Amino acid sequence: MRIPELSDIQSAWECIKPYIHNTPVMTSRLLNDYFGCELFFKCENFQKVGAFKFRGATNAVLSLTAKERNKGVVTHSSGNHAAALALAARMNGVKANIVMPENAPVVKKNAVAGYGADITFCKPNQKAREETTRIIMEKTGAILVHPYDNFNVICGQGTAALELLKEKNDLDVVIAPVGGGGLLSGTSACVRGISDKILVIGAEPANADDAYRSFISGKLCPSMDPQTVADGLLTSLSELTFSIIRKNVDNIYTVREESIIECMLLIWERMKIIIEPSSATVLAVIKENPDVFRGKKAGLILSGGNVDFRNLPF
Amino acid sequence: MRIPELSDIQSAWECIKPYIHNTPVMTSRLLNDYFGCELFFKCENFQKVGAFKFRGATNAVLSLTAKERNKGVVTHSSGNHAAALALAARMNGVKANIVMPENAPVVKKNAVAGYGADITFCKPNQKAREETTRIIMEKTGAILVHPYDNFNVICGQGTAALELLKEKNDLDVVIAPVGGGGLLSGTSACVRGISDKILVIGAEPANADDAYRSFISGKLCPSMDPQTVADGLLTSLSELTFSIIRKNVDNIYTVREESIIECMLLIWERMKIIIEPSSATVLAVIKENPDVFRGKKAGLILSGGNVDFRNLPF
Repeated sequence: MRIPELSDIQSAWECIKPYIHNTPVMTSRLLNDYFGCELFFKCENFQKVGAFKFRGATNAVLSLTAKERNKGVVTHSSGNHAAALALAARMNGVKANIVMPENAPVVKKNAVAGYGADITFCKPNQKAREETTRIIMEKTGAILVHPYDNFNVICGQGTAALELLKEKNDLDVVIAPVGGGGLLSGTSACVRGISDKILVIGAEPANADDAYRSFISGKLCPSMDPQTVADGLLTSLSELTFSIIRKNVDNIYTVREESIIECMLLIWERMKIIIEPSSATVLAVIKENPDVFRGKKAGLILSGGNVDFRNLPF
Repeated sequence: MRIPELSDIQSAWECIKPYIHNTPVMTSRLLNDYFGCELFFKCENFQKVGAFKFRGATNAVLSLTAKERNKGVVTHSSGNHAAALALAARMNGVKANIVMPENAPVVKKNAVAGYGADITFCKPNQKAREETTRIIMEKTGAILVHPYDNFNVICGQGTAALELLKEKNDLDVVIAPVGGGGLLSGTSACVRGISDKILVIGAEPANADDAYRSFISGKLCPSMDPQTVADGLLTSLSELTFSIIRKNVDNIYTVREESIIECMLLIWERMKIIIEPSSATVLAVIKENPDVFRGKKAGLILSGGNVDFRNLPF
């Protein structure tokens, strides 16, 4: 298993930067006063397709050989990665096949279809997804771009932290959400490569705490049927993301559902930006551990802003 | 009646700029493609207190004489102007008295109280508001800062357009919402002072179309009990704002309630920023008049982002 280094993330950034948004780093005096620390929000909710996932998907597409490009790419996802891969593929003239559960929300189906991907529907379970994906790969030779268990995807996700530290180089800590671990492992490889003094922390819903349990026990412990409002963080670490996280991450904090919802509302109300519940976990870590972060400069990666406005948690 | 000129707005900007946010000008390739024109959104939803009103209130407070400062300021408002005046006064060590209807939403009462203003509650009608304000003025000598029928307030509101044109000087048109007309008159005085070639357009809900009717007829026609989702635009023009608008504005377009709601949702979904319904009127003008704006560069002033998330119109 190859573990990404800072130089891999720097190379990824050079490749993808004509395609991605260099998203703004926002601050809020109100929230700084409220939490007693200095917060720097890296706004991946403003990224293309509304999530950091576009970075990794773009890097994966740009890493294909000419032969592979002709075969196209495939993934199974009902979330942000599906839209991200569909758009990244289209922008680079590569065919994308997306396997989606037949019960995926219409708005997500439309988004992926709107980016010109071929959608194959399957039964809404992991086995059907993987089987359908395998059949497409056999039939078309398409290259699998896994949402997080993929070296190039991880390097792409790490570029958000790279931009954050280019803009703000005196942070004490960087906090990123952790689901499957693509964002946190990319972030941690980047930050650790730049400095030993900046802490890297993962933010995870207590209701989907496989990364926390794996991190503490040193043994990969996948989640079974987790239930959390942070619907981008339901997936479990892979061997690859777990290795990177063990090597580079200083700590993982779990946060309660109420904290996630409260922090999501705080960011909407005070900063006037739309973030999805998964993004709010990073601020929830600050909220639940005020003594740890008091007086510190913290970089918080807001992972995305794709929300169903008809089904808000508050 | 003194009518503001560009130089008045430039002076206001020099005074208030240490206190206000120079808010970002955002763009969205998706919305540009959707509407077939180039849109530049001046994001006053990111202004302090979440609305452009902080500009005018700050300029009014900074325009007080030393004697007036000691007496304090007073206004009657249940909306963004109340919070804006309360904060502007506090930041400058001036006492603020705010007259609010007793049925104002708790969240708005708390916001104003949180900025340290003295609140006096009154019956929820115009007569009680004015009478209560008059009593406070008599008792304390406090200076009335009207939400829009005030030269210094209007000059402050015009500074949003000044910043927009400093950043983007080749616009074909600038569109601002119109309620009482403080923002539109300040905007129009600024734009007209800078160039004769840039059109200035007002955006008004068809359900609260007093400015449109006044503009067309040449005679001030106040609204009677208007009903619109754009709750920041319920007020009617004053003689002062009407004079400025007649002199400088090229056209006023009315927009339907459905268009306001659709455009609010479009901005939330596509730009991931929170705007209030009043702000969406400017995009609704583009939506309802595609032929007028096709291929044009349009500056749109998003007036604010204070929304009750438990009572969304979509």
